[in-house]
Amino acid sequence: MVLLIISNNSKITRILTKNSNRNMYFHNFEKVFKIEICLFMKNAKLQAFIPLLYIVWSDDLLTEKEVLTLQEFIDSQDWLSQDEKQLLFSKITISNPPSRQDITDWKKKIEQTIQDHPAVKSIFEIAVALSQNDVVIHDTETSFIKLENDLGILGAEAISNFKTKAKTYTVTQQTEASFDVQKITDLLDGEQAPIINKVKSIISRPEFKYETVTDIGVYRQKVYDWCKILAQENLGNMAYPKQYGGGENIADYFSIMETLSYHDLSLVIKFGVQFGLWGMSVQSLGTEKHYAKYLKDIGTLKLPGCFAMTETHHGSNVKGLETTATYHHENQTFTIHTPHEKAQKEYIGNAALHGQMATVFAKLIIAGHDYGVNAFVVPLRDENGTVLKGITIGDCGHKMGLNGVDNGTIRFDTVVISKENMLDRFASVNDKGEFESPIPSDNRRFFTMLGTLVGGRIGIPRSALAAAKSGLTIAIKYSDQRKQFGPEGGSEVPILNYRMHQRRLLIPLAKTYAIHFALHYLTKRFLNKKEAEMQEIEALAAGLKSYSTWSTTAILQECREACGGKGYLSENRIDALKNDTEIYTTFEGDNTVLMQLVAKNRLSEFRKSFGAVPH
Amino acid sequence: MVLLIISNNSKITRILTKNSNRNMYFHNFEKVFKIEICLFMKNAKLQAFIPLLYIVWSDDLLTEKEVLTLQEFIDSQDWLSQDEKQLLFSKITISNPPSRQDITDWKKKIEQTIQDHPAVKSIFEIAVALSQNDVVIHDTETSFIKLENDLGILGAEAISNFKTKAKTYTVTQQTEASFDVQKITDLLDGEQAPIINKVKSIISRPEFKYETVTDIGVYRQKVYDWCKILAQENLGNMAYPKQYGGGENIADYFSIMETLSYHDLSLVIKFGVQFGLWGMSVQSLGTEKHYAKYLKDIGTLKLPGCFAMTETHHGSNVKGLETTATYHHENQTFTIHTPHEKAQKEYIGNAALHGQMATVFAKLIIAGHDYGVNAFVVPLRDENGTVLKGITIGDCGHKMGLNGVDNGTIRFDTVVISKENMLDRFASVNDKGEFESPIPSDNRRFFTMLGTLVGGRIGIPRSALAAAKSGLTIAIKYSDQRKQFGPEGGSEVPILNYRMHQRRLLIPLAKTYAIHFALHYLTKRFLNKKEAEMQEIEALAAGLKSYSTWSTTAILQECREACGGKGYLSENRIDALKNDTEIYTTFEGDNTVLMQLVAKNRLSEFRKSFGAVPH
Repeated sequence: MVLLIISNNSKITRILTKNSNRNMYFHNFEKVFKIEICLFMKNAKLQAFIPLLYIVWSDDLLTEKEVLTLQEFIDSQDWLSQDEKQLLFSKITISNPPSRQDITDWKKKIEQTIQDHPAVKSIFEIAVALSQNDVVIHDTETSFIKLENDLGILGAEAISNFKTKAKTYTVTQQTEASFDVQKITDLLDGEQAPIINKVKSIISRPEFKYETVTDIGVYRQKVYDWCKILAQENLGNMAYPKQYGGGENIADYFSIMETLSYHDLSLVIKFGVQFGLWGMSVQSLGTEKHYAKYLKDIGTLKLPGCFAMTETHHGSNVKGLETTATYHHENQTFTIHTPHEKAQKEYIGNAALHGQMATVFAKLIIAGHDYGVNAFVVPLRDENGTVLKGITIGDCGHKMGLNGVDNGTIRFDTVVISKENMLDRFASVNDKGEFESPIPSDNRRFFTMLGTLVGGRIGIPRSALAAAKSGLTIAIKYSDQRKQFGPEGGSEVPILNYRMHQRRLLIPLAKTYAIHFALHYLTKRFLNKKEAEMQEIEALAAGLKSYSTWSTTAILQECREACGGKGYLSENRIDALKNDTEIYTTFEGDNTVLMQLVAKNRLSEFRKSFGAVPH
Repeated sequence: MVLLIISNNSKITRILTKNSNRNMYFHNFEKVFKIEICLFMKNAKLQAFIPLLYIVWSDDLLTEKEVLTLQEFIDSQDWLSQDEKQLLFSKITISNPPSRQDITDWKKKIEQTIQDHPAVKSIFEIAVALSQNDVVIHDTETSFIKLENDLGILGAEAISNFKTKAKTYTVTQQTEASFDVQKITDLLDGEQAPIINKVKSIISRPEFKYETVTDIGVYRQKVYDWCKILAQENLGNMAYPKQYGGGENIADYFSIMETLSYHDLSLVIKFGVQFGLWGMSVQSLGTEKHYAKYLKDIGTLKLPGCFAMTETHHGSNVKGLETTATYHHENQTFTIHTPHEKAQKEYIGNAALHGQMATVFAKLIIAGHDYGVNAFVVPLRDENGTVLKGITIGDCGHKMGLNGVDNGTIRFDTVVISKENMLDRFASVNDKGEFESPIPSDNRRFFTMLGTLVGGRIGIPRSALAAAKSGLTIAIKYSDQRKQFGPEGGSEVPILNYRMHQRRLLIPLAKTYAIHFALHYLTKRFLNKKEAEMQEIEALAAGLKSYSTWSTTAILQECREACGGKGYLSENRIDALKNDTEIYTTFEGDNTVLMQLVAKNRLSEFRKSFGAVPH
């Protein structure tokens, strides 16, 4: 094998033929090489090359280009004899590398030299020491350093590799909290601590064990059952007036939404659809007669319902909804109708399976005149869950996430409802069959109606916040345990010790704290709102809803990547957190559209702050 | 009702009590208001206020603050009598808004004025015209414009709203291609057009209908069956030497990977595990005897196998793998062993169900000495799929995506394999039982072995590229059809017409074209690689793998959001594209770690380009 290699290497072949006094080579090549090595190790001058040879052979980077660089350098050194040069050439033949023993010997020599001369600071200085301070070597300093440079050898780094042996790095222990956890918990929970603890204790019960099947039917039923337990615990009706069995505590309601989000996000959304969207639409858009008739049953989940606003063709532009509610004065009824397939209600939570009623947004038509979008309570199913005549339900099917929520489509084929089913806080039909409203502009009335529902834009970002907190907790805890790489010869270190990993997780952590307090500020503003502040609060809610949900999307993305393969396994929850919150940037107002609302509000205020600009 | 409102409004109550000559008011309030309106419409001076009143009542923004601003303005106008002021105050009472008829009348007046005076350019000029050019009004210009400003009324915008009526905007048609689609297809496909078209035609067959069940078992079997069809079509063995039944065409192999990615990504990964990772590891790390024994059966999928490198405790830091392969010279065997639970192989594709063999990376131990990580072919199951003695298989279970791939864990309990199962291209045990390798450094040998597998870092980004193309095609086509909002009174416009939407989709589209050509450049460099270029090509592959897969993650995120709720429904495929490619940023080398490799390479080159820096 050695013969083969030598005969394939023109330079070495040349030595073998040219040097007649080395005829012996032809007889025993293995022995020749041993003699060469022996000569090499004894020739002090040549020993100056040991550090270079060790480094190029021990690192992972020796390439043909580097071999060429070394060869050129050797060739240009006048102080080397032709034989010495050829000997050195033989040490840098890729196809005939040194043995493991050679490399080990070189390493020992270098380490010994460093021990003997602790002041050495560069590869060159080691070379000089190895050459037993040969004057000739001293003179090569400039070209030697240039060579190191051309080879990409970082001298100081190489020296420290020989020296350290990983004695200094032992930061392998996990991080301990350096602050009072209870104090920061108190600060975060604030006055809502009792309800937060109550919810945490409920979702920690065995019956709230995570549902991990991929069967949508099973998952939806489980989430529905969970909602019933929460209703029994009087969590669903928390925001409703006391006279209808509620807790009359909106602050607690938001904290319930947020705390439930530490568990299963399908549960939060199903809960929010029933008690928030469906219940609060009745409370915000209806009047006394509706409260008396529905609120108690909604709060106990005896009457599951939907919030049927979005249509296939109208999502962001809800003003353009096409479902109609045509008034008939002769029998005091409305006919709810879907004029064409794309005007069906879509993505409606609770619709596919459980909803018995819905707040339906439809254009009110009286005597051929369109009075804009208004809200009506429309029955969908009887108490046994049988879909009523005129109602067609579709199932949105499998979604990226939130598969515990039964989103569906609803079509109305001339469904007749009683006049009193109109949610008439902001508009009504009087006894003469005429339209009446304290807000004459259809546009303004509609946006006033929507304004009363702004609470959803607080509940959703707070739920998104909780999801980000869960994701960060998982990712940071994992990266404080997961060890990978480390100093040579030493233990591996927790990946959270790497600055890169800190930057990808701790900055989002800080941001999440900031969003926590921002959303608490928003909640307070909302709870203490005055009429004159509504516009500002609506813009603030729109902006924070967008900011918080986008932040959650970005943070969970980072958490997934930071956890590597473990982050991809569903059992580690980042899957569900990420996919469930994915739609948060779209529902309760598409973030991009909401940001335009924020921009419009800010620009208007900015303009006003300047006073009149002359034309 | 009117009485109630009036008595709640101190200012109006004042008029009613102060103006004795208006005693009639107390008799018939409704009539009074009609008289007032009548007076108002006849008083030319007061008509100057019509545009302001119309705008504040018709837009969605009237707030208490704006009412106050208007009241202050009115109060400060000396030219108005006290009665006139009170009359105006009555027009801006939130609790007593004008009727729909009032607003309609005001609007007509304004539109008539604009028609009569087409040169008007501001709300103020309309006011002047309405006042019949009253000199007094002329004098109020400054304060009037300041008022408009304080109210946030954009004069020019308001005027144009009265004028346009949506006659000019009718860009509702969908976009047509303005270039030769075939020409650009030719440019993109290049010489690989025949194989691309072949693959497209195969995956268009009915048997490749998407599998939509959520049952992992069904999905995995479907993907396995698909792979068998592709093997029958001689796509699996495309990169193998002809003498082992292969196509000896690596360029085509990459194009197959990319084109299959337009279909199902589990299929691509299962295909890549079998024919790329498993087959190419045998080809790149083994020698003739392994090719002869395995390659043909791998290429036909008669011998399904795995690439078992990653361990639970070692992913990025593969040098630290702990599985051992201990050599026994007495019977010329290796014992493959998992020393502890966390040293099990993890995330291994094809392991949970179908793999009969695996290329296992393990530390070679000879006579107590550790020779670093080497590769061995280890049988896992017999031909009937029964797991062999000493092998323990785990199932990674449900994942965020790629659920058609049976990822699993593998544990070895002193599994004995023949000496010839060592893939011995870069290292071997000689007849004396000694370790032999042309690359003496364990480190360098291992990275040389890994270097031969760099093809995976070309196949994966090309698959990611295809996923981005699919996502963008879905999102851009949808947004060219989906209409939302539009000019008042006009049709809604496709959302792709909005600049915001163009920016979120067309810039990623351009970037995707750029990545297409960058990856084709990388492929060409790889196919024509010389030894001296390997380091550069490895760095290029590492960089482009990271860049391309991160780009795909970001693009599919944007696509999902740009498609709103439709993007969330699994039937529209962005779900699968997004979740399947989510792990692309982690496998075949974690992007963050790869980028450090790129940085190291670039910094080394950069340093070299400067020559020696004096100390």
